[in-house]
Amino acid sequence: MMVETLRWREHRLELLDQRLLPATVAYVACSSAEEVAQAIKTLVVRGAPAIGVAAAYGVALQALQHAAQPRARFTSAMHQGLQVLTASRPTAVNLFWALNRMRALWATCETEAPAAVAQRLLAEAHAICAEDVRVNQTLGAHGAVLLPQEARVLTHCNAGALATAGHGTALGVIRSAVAMGKKISVLVDETRPVLQGARLTAWELMQEAIPVTLITDSMAGHMMAQGAVDAVVVGADRVAANGDVANKIGTYMVAVLAHRHEIPFYVAAPLSTFDWSLDSGAAIPIEERNPEEVLGFGAYRWAPAGIAVCNPAFDVTPAELVSALITEQGVVMAPDRTKLAALKNHSQCGIHSPPIFD
Amino acid sequence: MMVETLRWREHRLELLDQRLLPATVAYVACSSAEEVAQAIKTLVVRGAPAIGVAAAYGVALQALQHAAQPRARFTSAMHQGLQVLTASRPTAVNLFWALNRMRALWATCETEAPAAVAQRLLAEAHAICAEDVRVNQTLGAHGAVLLPQEARVLTHCNAGALATAGHGTALGVIRSAVAMGKKISVLVDETRPVLQGARLTAWELMQEAIPVTLITDSMAGHMMAQGAVDAVVVGADRVAANGDVANKIGTYMVAVLAHRHEIPFYVAAPLSTFDWSLDSGAAIPIEERNPEEVLGFGAYRWAPAGIAVCNPAFDVTPAELVSALITEQGVVMAPDRTKLAALKNHSQCGIHSPPIFD
Repeated sequence: MMVETLRWREHRLELLDQRLLPATVAYVACSSAEEVAQAIKTLVVRGAPAIGVAAAYGVALQALQHAAQPRARFTSAMHQGLQVLTASRPTAVNLFWALNRMRALWATCETEAPAAVAQRLLAEAHAICAEDVRVNQTLGAHGAVLLPQEARVLTHCNAGALATAGHGTALGVIRSAVAMGKKISVLVDETRPVLQGARLTAWELMQEAIPVTLITDSMAGHMMAQGAVDAVVVGADRVAANGDVANKIGTYMVAVLAHRHEIPFYVAAPLSTFDWSLDSGAAIPIEERNPEEVLGFGAYRWAPAGIAVCNPAFDVTPAELVSALITEQGVVMAPDRTKLAALKNHSQCGIHSPPIFD
Repeated sequence: MMVETLRWREHRLELLDQRLLPATVAYVACSSAEEVAQAIKTLVVRGAPAIGVAAAYGVALQALQHAAQPRARFTSAMHQGLQVLTASRPTAVNLFWALNRMRALWATCETEAPAAVAQRLLAEAHAICAEDVRVNQTLGAHGAVLLPQEARVLTHCNAGALATAGHGTALGVIRSAVAMGKKISVLVDETRPVLQGARLTAWELMQEAIPVTLITDSMAGHMMAQGAVDAVVVGADRVAANGDVANKIGTYMVAVLAHRHEIPFYVAAPLSTFDWSLDSGAAIPIEERNPEEVLGFGAYRWAPAGIAVCNPAFDVTPAELVSALITEQGVVMAPDRTKLAALKNHSQCGIHSPPIFD
């Protein structure tokens, strides 16, 4: 079964409601930037690339909704829409990347009639969506080469089709390796508090009959010590210019353990995830989410009422712990500032070989 | 409020049902070895020292239940009771320590009338229970010295009053430090899958107004990286002769992270937790529990049906990651085989100073 994370139907953006998975497959329809922002904030849609694509559609929806209005009101509505989308989540940079791209396109055509602008913005959102799938397929193929013919791969959270417009980043690497005929089995951390591993990655891989075993986040170290992990592949929410990686809370722990056990730790991240403006991971804003998420799951509570809670949604893995960054432009082994600068230049030149920076 | 984990009431052992905490405070009454074994197996009672004390009462209950029978049937029932208790859980060695102690006492009086034997066994169980509290108070005082005047202490699982006959081991160190006037706040991992941190440690500390903040297991590394942890204190289920420590799954990850961040990692363990017969932690049997525990919590399920699961209940932390073992006989800094041999001799000689082996 093909997972459709986002789809354009009857002039609306339909988002697979990931809060309900795996029990229920249902879509939430959005008609405005406000509705898309709300869906991002409440985790109907999540995963850095998928957030970027959804935000792009949010801008297009805002334009379509106000296309019949006079230019001044259209412009004001667009600014408001961009603002509400910008404020939806702070850590994944793909959101800002997509909004900047939509804003840049708008700047090229702002003298046109609002209805024409809206059509251009919708076409751009469709392009961003389609590109995301192609980018993931390309980085998946690059990353698949790194995995042995038979591999037990640990992943954390969900960097799959559900986190993107399709194919996935970390799970894209796994899908591509499977398609190449490699024998891959996946060990997935459940990923408290929102359980993206237990609910989303587990479900997504089972749909395609890729062997998957679920563990709690606390078991990853033991599994590595038992020799049950050959490689780690995770996604990213933001990569700084020195190669530091912000990703789902718990990723840093997995990276430290992989390092101790000399297990390769790979990060699959499209270039839209790179924030060249940040000198290091220390500058990445870490979202602190609602304490309720830690007190239980869904409506179910197990912690004592009134207890203090911390709920950082992401952590930062220093570049020194990253064996390779896997991008659509190639693989950066043992990433550092110099190699990433080369990757940046390379991507801006549009050169497509060699794919390995080492 | 004083937590009563186990209590002897009307010729029965009453166990605080820890599966229901923190929502409900209720006791389960046991009248036989079989009932106690079932309570241990199903986690009504848990925590290495508490399991040991409960098992001792289980032996006494078995004797009391069969005290009116002819010696041959009494003897047979006792062997059966010892067997069912031995099989209840495999990792915590305090269970076997307590059963051996009860068996040894029985050997000294087996020619007496069953009713007299039963009274002796009950007295021994009471003694084991009372000793456990004293031992924890002593090791608590030794460990409290190691903590700075103000400290943010991370703990994993529950090694508190709820895991013992009273005071606790890891939380005993914290209680003793607080009693000494030190300013201690606790950061507790929720400890999936059974959530002993979120349900038990959180509740137990809140009862005494010791400041406690709850995090998911995946957040410990981030908190250390943020400089929010001054020391780690955990309990143990079994310590091997070289200082390797089996404790709740996830402990190893915390130890690796503490090592990276140069944060002291302390293990509070009474001598009943030491297994001198095991050369290293590699020989400690690790209990694999019901996969259901990982699929959700309680009756609530969030993972897809049919998914494969691993559920090791414990992991092994190598001695090299342990800054100190805190026992009632003293503190062993940077434990190794030689120092533990000295501790063993020391404890067998009954010498009570010096309390630090370094």
